[in-house]
Amino acid sequence: MVDLTPNPSFSLTIRLTVPNRAGMLASVTQAIAQVGGNLGQIILIEQTRKISTRDITIDATSTEHAEQIVQAVKALADTKIINVYDRTFNLHRGGKISIASKQPLDSPVELAMAYTPGVGRICHAIAEDPEQVYSLTIKSNTVAIVTDGSAVLGLGNLGPAAALPVMEGKAMLFKEFAGIDAFPVCIATQDTDSIIETVKNISPVFGGVNLEDISAPRCFEIEARLRRELDIPVFHDDQHGTAIVSLAALTNALKLVNKSIEDVRIVINGAGAAGVAIGRLLRKAGAKTILMCDSRGVLSKNRNDLTEQKREFAVEAAGSLAGAISGADVFLGVSIPGVVTPEMIRSMAKKPIVMAMANPTPEIQPELVEDYVAVMATGRSDYPNQINNVLAFPGIFRGALDCRAQEITANMYLEAASAIASLVKASDLDREHIIPSVFDERVVTAVAAAVQRAARQDGVAQR
Amino acid sequence: MVDLTPNPSFSLTIRLTVPNRAGMLASVTQAIAQVGGNLGQIILIEQTRKISTRDITIDATSTEHAEQIVQAVKALADTKIINVYDRTFNLHRGGKISIASKQPLDSPVELAMAYTPGVGRICHAIAEDPEQVYSLTIKSNTVAIVTDGSAVLGLGNLGPAAALPVMEGKAMLFKEFAGIDAFPVCIATQDTDSIIETVKNISPVFGGVNLEDISAPRCFEIEARLRRELDIPVFHDDQHGTAIVSLAALTNALKLVNKSIEDVRIVINGAGAAGVAIGRLLRKAGAKTILMCDSRGVLSKNRNDLTEQKREFAVEAAGSLAGAISGADVFLGVSIPGVVTPEMIRSMAKKPIVMAMANPTPEIQPELVEDYVAVMATGRSDYPNQINNVLAFPGIFRGALDCRAQEITANMYLEAASAIASLVKASDLDREHIIPSVFDERVVTAVAAAVQRAARQDGVAQR
Repeated sequence: MVDLTPNPSFSLTIRLTVPNRAGMLASVTQAIAQVGGNLGQIILIEQTRKISTRDITIDATSTEHAEQIVQAVKALADTKIINVYDRTFNLHRGGKISIASKQPLDSPVELAMAYTPGVGRICHAIAEDPEQVYSLTIKSNTVAIVTDGSAVLGLGNLGPAAALPVMEGKAMLFKEFAGIDAFPVCIATQDTDSIIETVKNISPVFGGVNLEDISAPRCFEIEARLRRELDIPVFHDDQHGTAIVSLAALTNALKLVNKSIEDVRIVINGAGAAGVAIGRLLRKAGAKTILMCDSRGVLSKNRNDLTEQKREFAVEAAGSLAGAISGADVFLGVSIPGVVTPEMIRSMAKKPIVMAMANPTPEIQPELVEDYVAVMATGRSDYPNQINNVLAFPGIFRGALDCRAQEITANMYLEAASAIASLVKASDLDREHIIPSVFDERVVTAVAAAVQRAARQDGVAQR
Repeated sequence: MVDLTPNPSFSLTIRLTVPNRAGMLASVTQAIAQVGGNLGQIILIEQTRKISTRDITIDATSTEHAEQIVQAVKALADTKIINVYDRTFNLHRGGKISIASKQPLDSPVELAMAYTPGVGRICHAIAEDPEQVYSLTIKSNTVAIVTDGSAVLGLGNLGPAAALPVMEGKAMLFKEFAGIDAFPVCIATQDTDSIIETVKNISPVFGGVNLEDISAPRCFEIEARLRRELDIPVFHDDQHGTAIVSLAALTNALKLVNKSIEDVRIVINGAGAAGVAIGRLLRKAGAKTILMCDSRGVLSKNRNDLTEQKREFAVEAAGSLAGAISGADVFLGVSIPGVVTPEMIRSMAKKPIVMAMANPTPEIQPELVEDYVAVMATGRSDYPNQINNVLAFPGIFRGALDCRAQEITANMYLEAASAIASLVKASDLDREHIIPSVFDERVVTAVAAAVQRAARQDGVAQR
């Protein structure tokens, strides 16, 4: 496994009292520092002549580490812990999203317009002209976030209920970054046909479908069939969101090392939803030499265990990841923590680009190869160059909804990637800044505009 | 058809300019009054030395009537119409509900807690202990409003898209009256099995299911099977919401006329979802003599066209609605506009109770029988004694969610009805006030408390 630095996902707040005299707080902070806790805010809650009560927020590296920190504080003489809050759990109590009314509803007049009898006129208008559902209901700005919980983050098949916190978080991102109303649809079956039927059945309310955390290879068929059978855009974020942002980052990284996408030798480790989609999009962007590996090594034509999607990338070569990576210009990891060693990185071509995007823990810890790589990116917010889908999906859907795109095409992916990459000016481009921050407010607008433009070129924009 | 008074569902706002001199506004308001428009707010937008610009809000009785009003204003010399807004349509543009984040999400720290990597810990916690989905996600306060659009209000089979404005309105009511987050699920099939499978598939996100506007007799099977197969409460509002509020109103109306539910002869017109549910609940409340009619007259044992549910109410008698109603103490209509004549009402027993609940237009216009009935109720907000489901379903679900009821039992219906009825004090009870206003803030709390109590008695409360 890979050791990580303390980070906010293991953030705790300790409320404690210490005697109100010089040096007491210092002894607490020192104890925390000694066990490796990373101090955040320290808030004075109350101070009397005798005691001080404070909330101390600390980032840990793991649940065990958090417990170790609490024990270290407990061991101090004169210090009394009143409460320990796990900030991440606290933030999740009761869920993270809610439904809001856009209109007040506190008089009979409003009730008679928003509900019966007035609403009947709206129903009639839509029944007579089905297009009106886009202007008179929530449909035009509403996206279903659909999962079956079969591939939750990097954590595996946890099921639909355990996937819900991720989908709620995704709904927050849709709202925060693109003003889109998204709602979690966590499906209690992993049967492909039943998932497809369910999504089709609930589609009247939605202007788009974001598929999320559905395992390969089922995700490919589910997406393909829903794209064919629905008249609203369908986008599997784990595939295309990841591919778009990876391409954007790679585009800028290649500029830094002065190599072209046509010439570089690219190794993709992980042949699931993300790996396949990245491979496909890189090819569309001009990549000629891609070696894709799964847990059994290179996808070789000699292998007879390959799915249809993996066969698209089968090559004459064979062997292990270590063999494939030797001499490669680019490593793209969408696999599992710790599968790449410093030795493998040292075996790459000159000025190697390493994008280790396994979540939450990358294929290799950035600190270990800092000196060998030209550019390093991960999926994490606590390292430079975060490859985060939130750079893509809000703008993709904003653009698709705004022009009523019937579908989201490969051109729209390419244009989105190009729009993201272009937000890093040549003068700002360096090895720790190949991709805009997720909080860069220009991103959504740039992506949405690019997506709309491509939709019009491809003839899929309906307005 | 039945003529109705002007009402807010046909509310329009005319923006116009008139010369700024005495008598000009008066001529406008007079013109509106002459064609029967009901004046609401008049707002001065701008006034110069020469002209005044005003927004005039007017209730009409129909779309045609609204047009007539506009023409009457247009015909005035010196008056210039700048714009005409249909307030009901305006209120619906872009839909009526949205998704809101409960937490800010504008820093990397918040992102790392609410989304990856922090959210992974929450997913694990739920995967290990599935009960945690109730505390760590939106489930415990979230209800699915499920329809197939087969029986939208009183308007018929308009389909799922045209039903969406009603479901959005319902979501507003859930939020406004009970703080519940409800989301519309409008299903694009009317196949019973497919609807059931779809609702079961999406159930992990929801703490309860409100079925809405699904036609009989399919609604009975859908509700029965979902109740059996889901571990969250399922409630078909058109059945039980209507039945609960009808029973509450009838309870108080009977007090006024000094009759007991065991003794009265009750005619229910309409043998769909609402009629059957009302009949069943009245029996549970002690009613002995119920004659139910459908469009072909009394549900008679001689008829061979009765569904399973209708057969529950089949009697030896036969004949028409007019025959059934003669001598009856109570008429409950959940059918269609205008099927009851003043003559029928005059044929009823002394002190008749008439609840004409067809929506949006009652079985008989209240003005026509004002002098013959002891108590009159309708489904409309613009007449006294509105039988409105919003008195029941918010409190029902508030109570059921708060005690994690596995199901909603008949006892819970009875207790809810009793709680609603008891909010009208004996001293306040009169023929125009047999039921609390939907804006009476005590209602939700009273119903929720009664529902929880009954749930505990019935052993279905899980906390």
